[in-house]
Amino acid sequence: MTDETKLKAAVLGASGYTGAETVRLLANHPRVDAVAATGHSLAGKALSEIFPHLAGPTDLSVVKAEDVDWSNIDIAFGCLPHGTSQDLIETLPEHVRVVDLSADYRLRDADLYADTYGRPHLNPARTAQVKYGLSEWRGETLEGEMLVACPGCYPTASLLALLPVVSIIDRDSVIIDAKSGVSGAGRGLKEGNLFSEAAEGAHAYGVGQHRHAPEIEQELNLEAGRTDIGVTFTPHLLPMVRGELVTCHVRGDANQLQTALEAKYADAAFVTVLPMGAPPPDTKHVRGTNHCRIAVYPDRVSGRVVIIAVIDNLVKGSSGQAIQNLNLMMGWDETLGLAGLQALFP
Amino acid sequence: MTDETKLKAAVLGASGYTGAETVRLLANHPRVDAVAATGHSLAGKALSEIFPHLAGPTDLSVVKAEDVDWSNIDIAFGCLPHGTSQDLIETLPEHVRVVDLSADYRLRDADLYADTYGRPHLNPARTAQVKYGLSEWRGETLEGEMLVACPGCYPTASLLALLPVVSIIDRDSVIIDAKSGVSGAGRGLKEGNLFSEAAEGAHAYGVGQHRHAPEIEQELNLEAGRTDIGVTFTPHLLPMVRGELVTCHVRGDANQLQTALEAKYADAAFVTVLPMGAPPPDTKHVRGTNHCRIAVYPDRVSGRVVIIAVIDNLVKGSSGQAIQNLNLMMGWDETLGLAGLQALFP
Amino acid sequence: MTDETKLKAAVLGASGYTGAETVRLLANHPRVDAVAATGHSLAGKALSEIFPHLAGPTDLSVVKAEDVDWSNIDIAFGCLPHGTSQDLIETLPEHVRVVDLSADYRLRDADLYADTYGRPHLNPARTAQVKYGLSEWRGETLEGEMLVACPGCYPTASLLALLPVVSIIDRDSVIIDAKSGVSGAGRGLKEGNLFSEAAEGAHAYGVGQHRHAPEIEQELNLEAGRTDIGVTFTPHLLPMVRGELVTCHVRGDANQLQTALEAKYADAAFVTVLPMGAPPPDTKHVRGTNHCRIAVYPDRVSGRVVIIAVIDNLVKGSSGQAIQNLNLMMGWDETLGLAGLQALFP
Amino acid sequence: MTDETKLKAAVLGASGYTGAETVRLLANHPRVDAVAATGHSLAGKALSEIFPHLAGPTDLSVVKAEDVDWSNIDIAFGCLPHGTSQDLIETLPEHVRVVDLSADYRLRDADLYADTYGRPHLNPARTAQVKYGLSEWRGETLEGEMLVACPGCYPTASLLALLPVVSIIDRDSVIIDAKSGVSGAGRGLKEGNLFSEAAEGAHAYGVGQHRHAPEIEQELNLEAGRTDIGVTFTPHLLPMVRGELVTCHVRGDANQLQTALEAKYADAAFVTVLPMGAPPPDTKHVRGTNHCRIAVYPDRVSGRVVIIAVIDNLVKGSSGQAIQNLNLMMGWDETLGLAGLQALFP
Repeated sequence: MTDETKLKAAVLGASGYTGAETVRLLANHPRVDAVAATGHSLAGKALSEIFPHLAGPTDLSVVKAEDVDWSNIDIAFGCLPHGTSQDLIETLPEHVRVVDLSADYRLRDADLYADTYGRPHLNPARTAQVKYGLSEWRGETLEGEMLVACPGCYPTASLLALLPVVSIIDRDSVIIDAKSGVSGAGRGLKEGNLFSEAAEGAHAYGVGQHRHAPEIEQELNLEAGRTDIGVTFTPHLLPMVRGELVTCHVRGDANQLQTALEAKYADAAFVTVLPMGAPPPDTKHVRGTNHCRIAVYPDRVSGRVVIIAVIDNLVKGSSGQAIQNLNLMMGWDETLGLAGLQALFP
Repeated sequence: MTDETKLKAAVLGASGYTGAETVRLLANHPRVDAVAATGHSLAGKALSEIFPHLAGPTDLSVVKAEDVDWSNIDIAFGCLPHGTSQDLIETLPEHVRVVDLSADYRLRDADLYADTYGRPHLNPARTAQVKYGLSEWRGETLEGEMLVACPGCYPTASLLALLPVVSIIDRDSVIIDAKSGVSGAGRGLKEGNLFSEAAEGAHAYGVGQHRHAPEIEQELNLEAGRTDIGVTFTPHLLPMVRGELVTCHVRGDANQLQTALEAKYADAAFVTVLPMGAPPPDTKHVRGTNHCRIAVYPDRVSGRVVIIAVIDNLVKGSSGQAIQNLNLMMGWDETLGLAGLQALFP
Repeated sequence: MTDETKLKAAVLGASGYTGAETVRLLANHPRVDAVAATGHSLAGKALSEIFPHLAGPTDLSVVKAEDVDWSNIDIAFGCLPHGTSQDLIETLPEHVRVVDLSADYRLRDADLYADTYGRPHLNPARTAQVKYGLSEWRGETLEGEMLVACPGCYPTASLLALLPVVSIIDRDSVIIDAKSGVSGAGRGLKEGNLFSEAAEGAHAYGVGQHRHAPEIEQELNLEAGRTDIGVTFTPHLLPMVRGELVTCHVRGDANQLQTALEAKYADAAFVTVLPMGAPPPDTKHVRGTNHCRIAVYPDRVSGRVVIIAVIDNLVKGSSGQAIQNLNLMMGWDETLGLAGLQALFP
Repeated sequence: MTDETKLKAAVLGASGYTGAETVRLLANHPRVDAVAATGHSLAGKALSEIFPHLAGPTDLSVVKAEDVDWSNIDIAFGCLPHGTSQDLIETLPEHVRVVDLSADYRLRDADLYADTYGRPHLNPARTAQVKYGLSEWRGETLEGEMLVACPGCYPTASLLALLPVVSIIDRDSVIIDAKSGVSGAGRGLKEGNLFSEAAEGAHAYGVGQHRHAPEIEQELNLEAGRTDIGVTFTPHLLPMVRGELVTCHVRGDANQLQTALEAKYADAAFVTVLPMGAPPPDTKHVRGTNHCRIAVYPDRVSGRVVIIAVIDNLVKGSSGQAIQNLNLMMGWDETLGLAGLQALFP
């Protein structure tokens, strides 16, 4: 019972968490219908069998990508792992707009991509030109684009916090200590992601070598007009499902940073800069929403500043921002389908 | 910036979880505006200061009930503890419609109320006549009512599961083994509700004497036209925030029970009876929604049947059902403000 | 650096949770040394690489069972899945004592075993005679035994609560509503056991057909000298790692039941019957210990009684009881290696 | 039934978590008996009523401090909040040895104490001389001491990681991003520590102004023979009960740092330096133990290094280290009563 006035969307890789979340959010979008959900090993299953919570939002079943009638599809959300994502996206017909949630088109430099992700890029020329869909920063430029790369969850929170201040902090001072809920690790089966092992403990991972660092550096350098900004990026896994918190340790003037952040996001629908002195933002206060909350704190040690940002990794950190980007690509109000989301607290 | 075409609502006791949840849900209601939020010790504080997640949904501050201009209020949601609730509700002007989420008007028998809650009822005549707002059962009769008593969270799940079958099960067989997340205990400060003590453990409470048992018995007897149905009701506290699961152990014929449940809820917007043999419903599949999922299982032991129902205790178990009841009182579509809620999974 | 005065133990299947737990507990046993840990796919790895928390307790590496020098082994702990367990145990040399933690030797009736576990038993004559190692009940008879079957975690808690009263309750009234932490599901990789899916939700499973029901019935009937006792057994998965709680709904006289339980366990080292009226036991109060706590509650409905028991599923529910059984087989103090375990609270 | 050959200990403030933990751990100590547990509002209650998990380890009841027969007490563990702690400790008879777990005697500079904790110190001369009981660093000097100040939980982890390298890192580069479980907040009743609010979320607190920063600086400067080392210390609250993880961001040479750490702790009973390249330590791998695990990681950005340390905040971070300090004060093996503790995993 599709609505002919709506765009028809396919969700690529609907059996993962970002896929399921995209389907869920689209169900409340006034101008888009999810009409196809692709998958490989689970093809043939109803989405609501894999994810019972989708029983209300959708009656789609998983189909193989090769069985989709692409002539009927206006927009594809790429919710596949990197590598697999470009393999499919590069085969889609030209008329299909794509918002890719994977890492495949985020790095402009194909060599850096190959170094970081361990395989050559299928389409180096394209990745060099794809818009990086950090909505609040590239928003006005996305209209009309056919392919947009959604930022990673960590880069989203980190860049929203740092881009407005990158020119007024010591450029060699950026340390991002990041924390994420377990859903950020996806639905892949690993012992470390079992409840029994992830509950009641915390640990860092990918220390000194996480793949999101080059992505963050790319955008900071681009904004600052430099090439030498390097970030120390240290992610941690926390015993919670959703939520991402980045604690950015920098050198600068806290008041100046506060002012720059407030100026940048004064009219942002989804980014709130807390007043100086406010209690630190909690990931739970944005859980289930497309919002980012940012706060600035001067340290006891003169000249050091802590900037904290929180998001829901599956919404603003992936599926929500993907829809926000689609809205911008289409020239719509960027909040369509997202404005009604409220944080589930407690 | 209130909308004159909308009803104006006051939330009584907005500093507790059901109060905050009511404010949150009303923010998405197309025909109601929350214009007042009462509280005592926190009067003067912005709701968003107490509950930062409400920063988006509302800009209300807490006021004392005596400072509300009731002439401007159409509807009050009673989110106070029992006792305190009737004390305030009985003083409200006549024109104010009330949906009471407390236990104060649920028991028709004022003596039973006094026995159960340890104080005499202020208005025995009224409580004898107030409609018990289990929306799916009293729905058609609520239109025009000025005061409706919202069922407790446990009774909601238990009665949705048992009312359709109460006449076809052994009337002395009803055992309800119930499980709830910690938010059901409210925001009161008790050691047992601290994260450090509630996490990673489970225990029963109120065994053999919980206050929700008389409420469940009242409705089962009323529906069955009896007075002798007693239920063994044993609640447990689980280490999760939201969610309620009732496991009803009865004697009867599983197929007959399934048929009766399916028949009753065939057109229900918010109640789903899972097909026989489906995987047991999980509280997480309804978290954040006004839905109830019910499933029937025959036991290995002939003649014994297990009926399971899950709800979100703060939505269908309180604030969501309260809004559903308001919709019914007003003769509106019962799903107004609630249809867009989706389960937050994972 | 093994101690020649100690028994030498092999842990079969050391890469699962019960295997790891057995290794951990043995490290504090004064008369047993774990000298071999078998596994298949992880053979060659240090146990402390698989389970970093074992770095202190052991320096063993996983070896294939066929590479163990069994002439050097006095005792084997079977921590393998059912089926796999008997396949290995039936090949062990005669001198090796075995405590089997799997389900393979728990059911005396090989046909019932085949029905329940879906494969014929390798050694029907043996399973008919193996002692069922519910330590507090078969304790005195285990000395000298060469093979003991450790009860399942649910049967342990259920039978400790019900065996002392099985003759004084209505025999057709037994309903066991059980709750377990996720570690009870083992280390196998399933989506439902991922943190993201198991956290913040609860659900029943195996409703009406769980494999532990026949085991519970076998022992209840044996104790009561009957064959017709059937139990309704409904397990639930809770969002916690360790802990098991059984809520037994029966008909009888609460005081009589309390007396029978107190009499039975008056001198038990690891079972405590709480005084009538005590707050319900919490799984967290026995977490990490070999203890079981039991409490009896009369219901509002006359003649109905609730008996609650809590254990740590990985200790009293498996590895701890296995060591207790070994102590009994050897004629040692049953508390060796277990007495010092204390509950980790908070 | 006390053992005359054992020291007699009083636990001051036994109704909090560190008090309960001290009682629990002492129950396994071969040379100390806990014979008194003080408290104010809960005086008269059995400890096992307040903390049911202590039913096995102790049969003590809470008494008021003024009702203790101090002539019978050899050693007091101060488990009270700062301020309250010195108020009581300064009144104890001279023969009573004290291990104070509060902050009251950690800062040598009484003015800094007054600034940091908001009240003047009762005994400035004494606090200037009290030994700071970071066991691995002050161990050999504690023998014979009558009062030792146990470090805070964050300083313990931070200093174990940083003291061995403080002279070979840039002294103005120290950033400690710390994470703690909720038990670190104690048993005080605050909304933010309720399960419903702390679960499924994470946030920083005390940003730029936490009281543990001066304590860390004091010891780093002392070790380095400087006065100008300042640390940026940013603690976060994680949704877990126990566990503390500090992520130290410094500048230096990773290999040099690794070597220094390994050298320092080569013979340490309770500190393990993981080999370079090992997976990052998890708080759960030391949960319930007196161990600290430390790991060093070079960053992608040349010259930057991440040092991570994990402890159990209630054991090595408080009660366990307190007992370790007592052992050192008495000239005993420092592992008495602590060696048998094993991490509870999963």
